[in-house]
Amino acid sequence: MNYRVIFNTVGRIALVLATLLTIPTLLAACLAESSWWALLTTVGISLAIGLTLTFAVRPKTKAIFSKEGLIIVALSWIYVSAIGALPFVISGAIPNYIDAFFETCSGFSTTGATILTGTKIDAMYITDKALLFWRSFTHWIGGMGVIVFLMAFESGSSNRGMHVLRAEMPGPEVDKIVPRARSTAQILYLLYIGFTAVEIVALLIAGMPVFDSFVHAFGTAGTGGFGVRSDSIASYGAACQWIITVFMVLFGVNFNLYYLWILGKIKSAVKSQELWIFIVIIAVSTSIVSVDLSLANLSFADNAGDAIRHAAFQVASFISTTGYSSIPTIAGDINVFPLLSKGLLFLLMFIGGCAGSTGGGLKVSRVALLCLAVRKELRHVLHPRNANAVKFDGKTVSDEMLNGVARYFGLYMLILAGAFIVLCFDSGSGLTVEANITAAVSCVNNIGPAYGVVAGGYYMYNWFSKLTLSFAMLIGRLEIYPILLTVAPSTWIRR
Amino acid sequence: MNYRVIFNTVGRIALVLATLLTIPTLLAACLAESSWWALLTTVGISLAIGLTLTFAVRPKTKAIFSKEGLIIVALSWIYVSAIGALPFVISGAIPNYIDAFFETCSGFSTTGATILTGTKIDAMYITDKALLFWRSFTHWIGGMGVIVFLMAFESGSSNRGMHVLRAEMPGPEVDKIVPRARSTAQILYLLYIGFTAVEIVALLIAGMPVFDSFVHAFGTAGTGGFGVRSDSIASYGAACQWIITVFMVLFGVNFNLYYLWILGKIKSAVKSQELWIFIVIIAVSTSIVSVDLSLANLSFADNAGDAIRHAAFQVASFISTTGYSSIPTIAGDINVFPLLSKGLLFLLMFIGGCAGSTGGGLKVSRVALLCLAVRKELRHVLHPRNANAVKFDGKTVSDEMLNGVARYFGLYMLILAGAFIVLCFDSGSGLTVEANITAAVSCVNNIGPAYGVVAGGYYMYNWFSKLTLSFAMLIGRLEIYPILLTVAPSTWIRR
Repeated sequence: MNYRVIFNTVGRIALVLATLLTIPTLLAACLAESSWWALLTTVGISLAIGLTLTFAVRPKTKAIFSKEGLIIVALSWIYVSAIGALPFVISGAIPNYIDAFFETCSGFSTTGATILTGTKIDAMYITDKALLFWRSFTHWIGGMGVIVFLMAFESGSSNRGMHVLRAEMPGPEVDKIVPRARSTAQILYLLYIGFTAVEIVALLIAGMPVFDSFVHAFGTAGTGGFGVRSDSIASYGAACQWIITVFMVLFGVNFNLYYLWILGKIKSAVKSQELWIFIVIIAVSTSIVSVDLSLANLSFADNAGDAIRHAAFQVASFISTTGYSSIPTIAGDINVFPLLSKGLLFLLMFIGGCAGSTGGGLKVSRVALLCLAVRKELRHVLHPRNANAVKFDGKTVSDEMLNGVARYFGLYMLILAGAFIVLCFDSGSGLTVEANITAAVSCVNNIGPAYGVVAGGYYMYNWFSKLTLSFAMLIGRLEIYPILLTVAPSTWIRR
Repeated sequence: MNYRVIFNTVGRIALVLATLLTIPTLLAACLAESSWWALLTTVGISLAIGLTLTFAVRPKTKAIFSKEGLIIVALSWIYVSAIGALPFVISGAIPNYIDAFFETCSGFSTTGATILTGTKIDAMYITDKALLFWRSFTHWIGGMGVIVFLMAFESGSSNRGMHVLRAEMPGPEVDKIVPRARSTAQILYLLYIGFTAVEIVALLIAGMPVFDSFVHAFGTAGTGGFGVRSDSIASYGAACQWIITVFMVLFGVNFNLYYLWILGKIKSAVKSQELWIFIVIIAVSTSIVSVDLSLANLSFADNAGDAIRHAAFQVASFISTTGYSSIPTIAGDINVFPLLSKGLLFLLMFIGGCAGSTGGGLKVSRVALLCLAVRKELRHVLHPRNANAVKFDGKTVSDEMLNGVARYFGLYMLILAGAFIVLCFDSGSGLTVEANITAAVSCVNNIGPAYGVVAGGYYMYNWFSKLTLSFAMLIGRLEIYPILLTVAPSTWIRR
């Protein structure tokens, strides 16, 4: 294994982190907030680590294979989460390091699960805007990916990093937009910046304060879900909620389609089967939840307009795995929803966004391929000799692809089961089977809020549960393999 | 498709059902219970249907292929459930037909989920013993299978029915014990009768009343779970509970191993990897639940002996998918258990018994193969060129087998999700996400009791939910394919 290239790349990621941290540092300085020195200290630490690694560990060869790609991605994400947590600890905003690590993993993995209470968030909004900015900014960086960022903007980046890019991009397969990794990364980030900018402007026009517009645009773009008010998006009014609904859906779509659209290949873009399945699921779910909410006679949805708005918002928030809430209850808790809506949203948590989007979950195309694999299995039982080819998006899907998706799904469910049972060891008061199931599902799928007792925050879990959930979030964001391989002893021990 | 052989076989199953129903009919007559005529009427109905089908529809050829085998199994099970429900309706014990169908599906599929309240069961124990006997007898028949019964005991049965046998036997693959289907069926049933008889004697010695010993032996043998007291097994005392614990484990083991053992091939029997995994899971789970119960200071488990007894009973009950309870609370409800125990038992629900046992669930070997498939996938990501063979039980497992298990698991989870969301449409009071999850998991895995509001019985669900759960139970018992293919339009419509 090419250890040198691994540590060298992590070093370059450390420099990227230091650079990105200067933004909240400057903000803290401008706002004269006390956290500026905590942020600056972290910039210094990451700069030191970055310079040491990049200069001391020079790779003899730049060759990167699949294995190195996966480990680079995993170590980079663990690094940014571990160091990105320091400003919270040093400033005293989140004194416990495990809590801060959880919060930062939740940020970069675009989960949006928080250990902060509503009261604490409201207090930080007054005195610690820069830290809240950093918290949401991790969503934005994590959404498109830290390695993709490195590739797009670092001048020395090689063009041979398609392995690494592939390891960080979500979905069963990454289409190369263009054959060169660097150009792909640049195109993706330019689109990403453009969309985010449009959302910020839209929110400003709708009357959201400047600071809030930025953090919520970051949270939407990364499909993260961190907010700056204890009731999430509930108190911003209908216009802001509709804007965020639309952008949650837009950021749940494969970015390749936007690129095709820009190139004028609109026909190929709208032919995407995954896109249509995504739209149909959203439309059907929104209809069902709207009717269900109307029938439930809830005070905040007592007319058709409100019911549709909350239904669309919640459906978009769950399927895109953002986790924002429009419901005016304590902590934007969806426990007040009727059973059918809760059940449907629970299933949407598993589906997630499209491949190549910033959304989490299994991904729409993977769920579709799983259904196709199952249909093929049924046909095979019925007609053992017939072997009809399975088609998706107009292309024949190989058996290897279908079986890979089925095996991925098995692995995914085993990880969910593992996370769930670790949480059950936690004797925290009020934790239930339902709460632990939804917490595990929420973290692995990068959604954030869960039903039951953890709806308002994850602070009631003990440190070991928080650490487990932190890794569950990274595993979910990086689609299992990178983290699992990096912690597997057989990766590091030569036989 | 050979329709004639399908309907002819269902006709012979109808005759088997009529024959089996004479046992509770005679019991009702001896006990002078009013249900005798309801039972006798059903005998008459099934006899008439059976004679009509067997004489009117004579197959031109006895050729049975995989497809016919699956459909014969599905239709036979739907038939026995639909007609086996009539005594409850005609006698007025369960006046609603859907309720009776649910109860009978639950019986034959060895689920043990009941719509009867504790009070009703206590009342039937006094006035309707014959009906309670029939209810538990369906467990016993369903455990080893109705088709296996037909093959073993009908003189005219052909020896070419291995397809049909395979479709009814649980687990990823049926080993032929002997090459001829009929001999296999006979060996299985003789072992089954022997074990059941031993359990009856053991329970009698331990002081259980005669009638109760029979019904609980039936419930254990089929890993069903219907009892005759509102608190399940809780009030029978420690000796009876330990006997039932042991037999729940024994009936969760592959019957082929007992046959090997009788043949003197003890070495090959104890070499079974599935058996050892099953034993290790039970031992580890029992230890954890014992400690957890001890720490929880529950009144019924305040000393080590009681804690171990309840832990072993509950673990055996869940992994074998029997569903009996030893806990002295209303409806033997495990909601009083501490969180870790509840979480662990929840996961055991998915595993189930060994292949070729009467237990439900995914089956131990299938879970093991799924883990092997996942490990292979991880190795493949790490070393794409290496292709190490996967071994299980000393034999190399083909990729086709591993992929088949992964695809089966995907199908299984989709069915669980489907059953869950249908239940969420039910606006029954007190139903929750947790209750619906555990109800779906319980029925598909043929366990019976669930957490939350449905622990005491499924009567709060509406007719549509009950029908859904009834089919979920049959789907679980027959391992998905037979029922799904039988209800698929493409099976019946020629293109």
